[in-house]
Amino acid sequence: MIETPYLLYLGHSQDPADIKTSRGLAVFRPDICVGEYRHDDCPLTLDLPRMDFAAARAAGARTLVLGIANAGGKLGEALILDALAALEAGLDIASGLHHRLNAEPRLAEAAARLGRQLHDVREPRPDLPIGNGKKRAGKRLLTVGTDCSVGKMYTTLCLASALARRGVAADFRATGQTGILVAGDGVPLDAVIADFISGAIEQVSPARSDDGWDLIEGQGSLYHPSFAGVSTGLLHGAQPDALVLCHDPVRPHMRGLPHYPLPGIAETIEANLRVARLTNAEVRVVGIALNTSAMPEDEARALCASIEAEFALPTSDPYRFGVEAILDRLLETGVAAPGVAANA
Amino acid sequence: MIETPYLLYLGHSQDPADIKTSRGLAVFRPDICVGEYRHDDCPLTLDLPRMDFAAARAAGARTLVLGIANAGGKLGEALILDALAALEAGLDIASGLHHRLNAEPRLAEAAARLGRQLHDVREPRPDLPIGNGKKRAGKRLLTVGTDCSVGKMYTTLCLASALARRGVAADFRATGQTGILVAGDGVPLDAVIADFISGAIEQVSPARSDDGWDLIEGQGSLYHPSFAGVSTGLLHGAQPDALVLCHDPVRPHMRGLPHYPLPGIAETIEANLRVARLTNAEVRVVGIALNTSAMPEDEARALCASIEAEFALPTSDPYRFGVEAILDRLLETGVAAPGVAANA
Repeated sequence: MIETPYLLYLGHSQDPADIKTSRGLAVFRPDICVGEYRHDDCPLTLDLPRMDFAAARAAGARTLVLGIANAGGKLGEALILDALAALEAGLDIASGLHHRLNAEPRLAEAAARLGRQLHDVREPRPDLPIGNGKKRAGKRLLTVGTDCSVGKMYTTLCLASALARRGVAADFRATGQTGILVAGDGVPLDAVIADFISGAIEQVSPARSDDGWDLIEGQGSLYHPSFAGVSTGLLHGAQPDALVLCHDPVRPHMRGLPHYPLPGIAETIEANLRVARLTNAEVRVVGIALNTSAMPEDEARALCASIEAEFALPTSDPYRFGVEAILDRLLETGVAAPGVAANA
Repeated sequence: MIETPYLLYLGHSQDPADIKTSRGLAVFRPDICVGEYRHDDCPLTLDLPRMDFAAARAAGARTLVLGIANAGGKLGEALILDALAALEAGLDIASGLHHRLNAEPRLAEAAARLGRQLHDVREPRPDLPIGNGKKRAGKRLLTVGTDCSVGKMYTTLCLASALARRGVAADFRATGQTGILVAGDGVPLDAVIADFISGAIEQVSPARSDDGWDLIEGQGSLYHPSFAGVSTGLLHGAQPDALVLCHDPVRPHMRGLPHYPLPGIAETIEANLRVARLTNAEVRVVGIALNTSAMPEDEARALCASIEAEFALPTSDPYRFGVEAILDRLLETGVAAPGVAANA
């Protein structure tokens, strides 16, 4: 178990997309975040008190969360030096980067010497099974997207909270580092060995018989040429009864790939249904989630209404406007036709 | 480098599909295989001299190849004891199983004590990039399949040999353990971390400008719920100009999954073209490869003719009847329409 509360690391980050993990924790678990650590050249903030390591420790922080992303997930020299200083100040370290804390000799040495813990959240369990595709009991929803980083985790967490408020049993199943830090459990899907992608999802979202829902955090996009394999295995392992499509309406191109345009909503829905049907022929889409954080509210509401009308699917910005209409559609009984009538 | 010649391990295997790696080496590199090792309960043979470890060493063998597959790629106790005996007899060990030889303390200890090598062929390079999907120079062919283990490696190797006989520069790009042992290089794709699947293929099949072909060994199937993620990333990383569809006409169900029927040829072609177009809009199918080893010759020839007529694509059992018609289609110039006219 990772000890809380957390100090959230922003470091030298310049791009808001690069502090996704730290921001997710600040948003969904403000109760366990005492402050943020950033260098003077970092223009970003999570609106938490800015602290150095000693001040954070004095304020009660137990773990520095390296909640940043960078290409390839490398541990750079600046990051290593900051982590060493945090260990010296009495903090444990948790990281979701591909490159393991425990693989860096200076960090391993310092942690051992100081009696501190290094948590590599992206280290999968060693006993993952190969997926078997066998139909399992229970109801599952999966978020999918036109691209990476379009709000799949936010949407899934909003759905989990809203279902719980309605008294429906619901479990958030984390598949990425932020989600795992939020939920305290999950599988770091992008760090799983390729042969075990769908099996890992079968394991993290086991059969359930309480009439509740597993809400599975999606990853990547079938249209992202770097990560579509992960998204494919996730769809197959999840055997989803319901999909929610997540989309960023102002994204200029696929994340990290200026030479790839975003796919349309209709084709993304159709592609996801087609892949998902291999393991659950009854899969249907129950809503569209837009990340409208870059738009004024009236414009955002108008866009939601327009997309809702075009696709005949409840459409919302989950974080901004809630997910009640999507839940209504999800919980409807007697829905006959799988898929999206408007786009079948 | 793995020292040759090889002794091929069959062990206690009962299912011909489980000795795929050993058989592939016996078929494609008979020049470097001195014998086979099997227990009395093993009904299978590669028609190589049966030898124990000491006799194999005396006959010149340098490495025991654990060329067998089993669910999950585990190193069982029987396998470990055999490997220990082989080390004691003076052989190195090479393995393509998921479970690493070097992770088994008894093997690591014995190898160190005896000065022997343990080769984990399924250990990917540590420096794999994330795929970028950027169009790269050169011509690439990828084999795809209705299922796992339907002849993708055989087909790819046959195509490489036949192209070379025509004087066309051609490189076989291995993506599985047998292929790597045959070719001496490649990427063990099913052991790569999920985020790096397409990047690994971009690396193993780099840009080329000599007007030759990269022939990339396919893996899995878009219709196999355990492994479709691997197949998806492989299609995106390969950016194939040409696909050859591989199919086993007598396979009763998806490998290992009695609850999943095989997809049809037409839908498999369509699904692969759809996924492949994300990174190469000009991809086309140039042939169908059938594994007819379970059928009499006249029946096999009739089936090839029938499927060839149905899909308007050159169809053959590459190992039994050659790949000349497929190569003719591949090397045709001025082919206008991508895809398969009969199924578009």
